[in-house]
Formats: sequence, C-alpha cells, structure tokens
Amino acid sequence: MPRYAFKVEYDGGPFAGWQAQASQPSVQGTIEAALARLDPGFAAGARIAAAGRTDAGVHATGQVAHADLARPWDPFRLTEALNWHLGPAPVAILAAAEVPGDFHARFSARGRRYLFRLLARRAPSVLERGLVWQVRHPLDAGAMREGAAHLVGRHDFTTFRSTMCQARSPLKTLDRIEITEHPVPHGTEYRFHLAAPSFLHNQVRSIVGTLERVGAGAWPPGRVADALAARDRAACGPVCPPQGLYLVGVDYPGDPFAAISGGAPIRAGSPS
Amino acid sequence: MPRYAFKVEYDGGPFAGWQAQASQPSVQGTIEAALARLDPGFAAGARIAAAGRTDAGVHATGQVAHADLARPWDPFRLTEALNWHLGPAPVAILAAAEVPGDFHARFSARGRRYLFRLLARRAPSVLERGLVWQVRHPLDAGAMREGAAHLVGRHDFTTFRSTMCQARSPLKTLDRIEITEHPVPHGTEYRFHLAAPSFLHNQVRSIVGTLERVGAGAWPPGRVADALAARDRAACGPVCPPQGLYLVGVDYPGDPFAAISGGAPIRAGSPS
Repeated sequence: MPRYAFKVEYDGGPFAGWQAQASQPSVQGTIEAALARLDPGFAAGARIAAAGRTDAGVHATGQVAHADLARPWDPFRLTEALNWHLGPAPVAILAAAEVPGDFHARFSARGRRYLFRLLARRAPSVLERGLVWQVRHPLDAGAMREGAAHLVGRHDFTTFRSTMCQARSPLKTLDRIEITEHPVPHGTEYRFHLAAPSFLHNQVRSIVGTLERVGAGAWPPGRVADALAARDRAACGPVCPPQGLYLVGVDYPGDPFAAISGGAPIRAGSPS
Repeated sequence: MPRYAFKVEYDGGPFAGWQAQASQPSVQGTIEAALARLDPGFAAGARIAAAGRTDAGVHATGQVAHADLARPWDPFRLTEALNWHLGPAPVAILAAAEVPGDFHARFSARGRRYLFRLLARRAPSVLERGLVWQVRHPLDAGAMREGAAHLVGRHDFTTFRSTMCQARSPLKTLDRIEITEHPVPHGTEYRFHLAAPSFLHNQVRSIVGTLERVGAGAWPPGRVADALAARDRAACGPVCPPQGLYLVGVDYPGDPFAAISGGAPIRAGSPS
C-alpha cells in the first residue's frame, strides 16, 4: 500500500483537539471521514498518525500526518479530492506527497516549530477573535526575551509540562525562543517562535503564560530560571489559553514536500 | 454639547454595511445602541456620522465617526464604556478624542486609505475565512502593477463606479495603488494599498476585480487604460467580493487622535 504524507492547516476552535475521541469533533476524525470517502481502508476504520497531537483550540498551518491508501494517487488530485470532501470543515490539505513505507509523521520528525500570537491592546480584538490571545495591559519585550533566554538549551522541563503529560522524560532541548513585535492599530502583537526536536504536553502554553507574567512586570526575568530549576509544576506561571497557538511546521531528515514547496505553490493553468 | 471622534474597528461579515437600515444589522446602528446606554441624546435617537459608509461585508481597522454627547467624558473612560456596551458584537472602539464642534468625520476628511487582501492559493483558506478574497490560480504581480499604474492620478472613473453611486462627479484623484506580496504556506497573499481624497461607490472593488483579471492573464495590462478611457461601466472587470476589503485609515488636517496614537497605545497600570 502506498503511503502519503499530508501537510494540514486547521482552525482548532471548533475541535476537541487533533486526536479522535468518541462523540467529540476532532481534526483527525474529520480528515479520516474525508479519507473514508475515497479509500476502502479508511471506510473500514483505518487511522492516520500526526506529528503533533495538538490540544483543543490549538491551530495549525503546518501539521503533518500520514496515511496508507489502497491505491496510488496523483498527489495533486489526492489533495483536491480531500479538500472537496472536507467541505465546510475548517481543515485544509495544503499538500500531499508519496513517502517511503518507513516514513512516520510522528516518529520520523526531527523538529517541531510553534508560533504563539499574543496581542497586547486595550480595545477588544474583533477581526482576529479566536486567532490570538489578548491581554489588555502593556508588555515589555526586553524583559520577556531576558526571561526566555533561561529556557533555551537542554533542561528538565518538569515545571513547564502538564501533570497529564505522558512523555517518558521531562528532559527536552529547546532550540529557539524568538519574540518578535508587530504593531497593530493601538496595540502590539508579540509573536513567540519556538523550535525543538519535540515538546512536552502544554510546554509552549506554560512557557508563554510564564513569559507574559514577566512582560507584565509581575515576575522579574530571573524568576523564570528559578522556576525551571525548581522542577516543580507549582512553580510555573499560569498556562495561557490555546487560541494563540499554531503548529507551523514539522521538520524531517528529507522534506517530503520538497518537490511541491520548491515548485509553484499552485499549478499554472489550474481552473479558477 | 461636546463632540467626540471615534476610531472604529469592525468585522463587516455579520453586517448589512456601515449605514443604519431598518430591520438589518449595521455597524452604525450597533454603535448607536451602545451610545444610547450612556447618553440621553442617543437614547432619544441621535445619530453618528462616519468618514466612509462601507458596504455589507467590508471591514475596518480605522473607520472614523463622530458624535455629540450631552456631557463631557474622559476619552479613555468613554472608549472603555462603549466597548463594554458593544459586548459581543464584532465592533471595537480603538480610541476616542474630543474634537472641535466644526469637526465632521466625513466632510473634514482629506483622505481615505483602503487595504484589499487577495489570497492566491489552491487549498481553501480556513484560518482567514471571511477576511480575504481567495482565488485558486496564480497571479502575476508585475502585470497587476502595470495595470494599476494606469489608474493613478486624476481621472473620470465612471468605468470603476457602481451604477448606484450617488457622488455628484465621477472625477476623482487616486493618489496611490501599491501591491505588496506576502508569502503564506503554499500560496501568496497580495495586498492592494489604495489612497485617495475620496472614493466612488464600489471603486476599490471594481479596481481590484479588474486587476485580478490582469494578474490571472485574462486581461493584458493595457486593457485597464482602455477600460478607464471608455468611461463606461460595462468596460469594467468583475467587481470582487467585499470580504477582502478594509478601511484602514482616514486622514484629517490635524489628526484628532494624535495625543493617543502618539503616546502609549494602552495605559501603563491598566488592570489586566
């Protein structure tokens, strides 16, 4: 059976998360229902696997999943057919590619990249409701960067993971936290760019929620180092809400979508 | 009675347009209902005036309106009170400022700035649904810029205005059309930045809809000049849909919000 990798974008708002759950809408279940319309294996209950099992409300612009299909497909036609069957659901297949039988969306991944969008503005955000986390007070980007610097590298991240986290070890390497500032009318959006080989459950939201306290002046930046050293969940700042979080990319030893992302993003001569 | 100017942001999606209409939701009516909660004149039916009467589905990040209130207000408290009463409606007051009694949001305006967001991508946009106009074919930015250049300056824009347009003259000066390219996953967003002292009804959507045909290769760029010279509505390209259009700013001889936009966007020490 040929194996296909998919790059997936979704609005996490209406979903209980990536993972299929009985009687709750999930991104995985939505995609599997679309696959069931064109593949007998999925009509019989086959499953897909993803690089990151995002929580309820978390978005993606570059989630990667894989599926084994009964017959070969042209990747472009497979993308089109899936998007057709996904219909009005806020889930889109950005690209599909045939991959070797030993490719696994989760276990072959060498890195994950997340973006967190935090809007600091007094007036409510009406155009990006559900797409950013908003606070109504000013933030100090320099202080947040100083706090973030304590977290880069290999550490025991017990403080910054959910008590529900199922990872075997709390030891993780955080490759990068970059904070960029983007002016918006009467406010500033802060974007947190995080990259690591893998993340613990709630790690990004625990980190951003803590750094927000630093930016607000409630925590001195050095308290982030103390919280990390404590290796105690109780030392963490408040976990921030999911709607600002995006899984933006997953890195593999060879980019399965290289032929697509390197070429034209949309085919010349496609019907409008 | 003191007069106040308001800078307003809204998602035009759920509204029949800016202008109050019987039995249809409007941005104007929504703001007037909020004003009626705190001012006896509005409780008795006073009206507000705006710089641009945006159509159904058109958004704003910098609409300006004015209102006469029965008593003086601290501008910050007035903004907060209005946003409270606007509640869940996708309308936010970004700033308020007291203005002289001869300030008029529409008649004092010296310039309007619009943004149009056009996404060219094969896969459906799920995170920005209702916030961009999407086409599924590639576009040629150079050709669109060449076509746009024919429209800058003072012209008879009869071709590019709605037959319903109530402006006395079709002669308008278009100060600027700039087209910027923004990469998005597996596609490109084209942003059209237009500025003019004032616009005719449907002028921006008529221009962008025509330039999209140029970008798609269906029209040679020179046909834009021919269409303009025809001074005939039938020579226009298709009018594009409203959901990509944003009124981003209105310019006055003196910026009524200078004290606010020049200072801190949000007050230090505001409660979180």
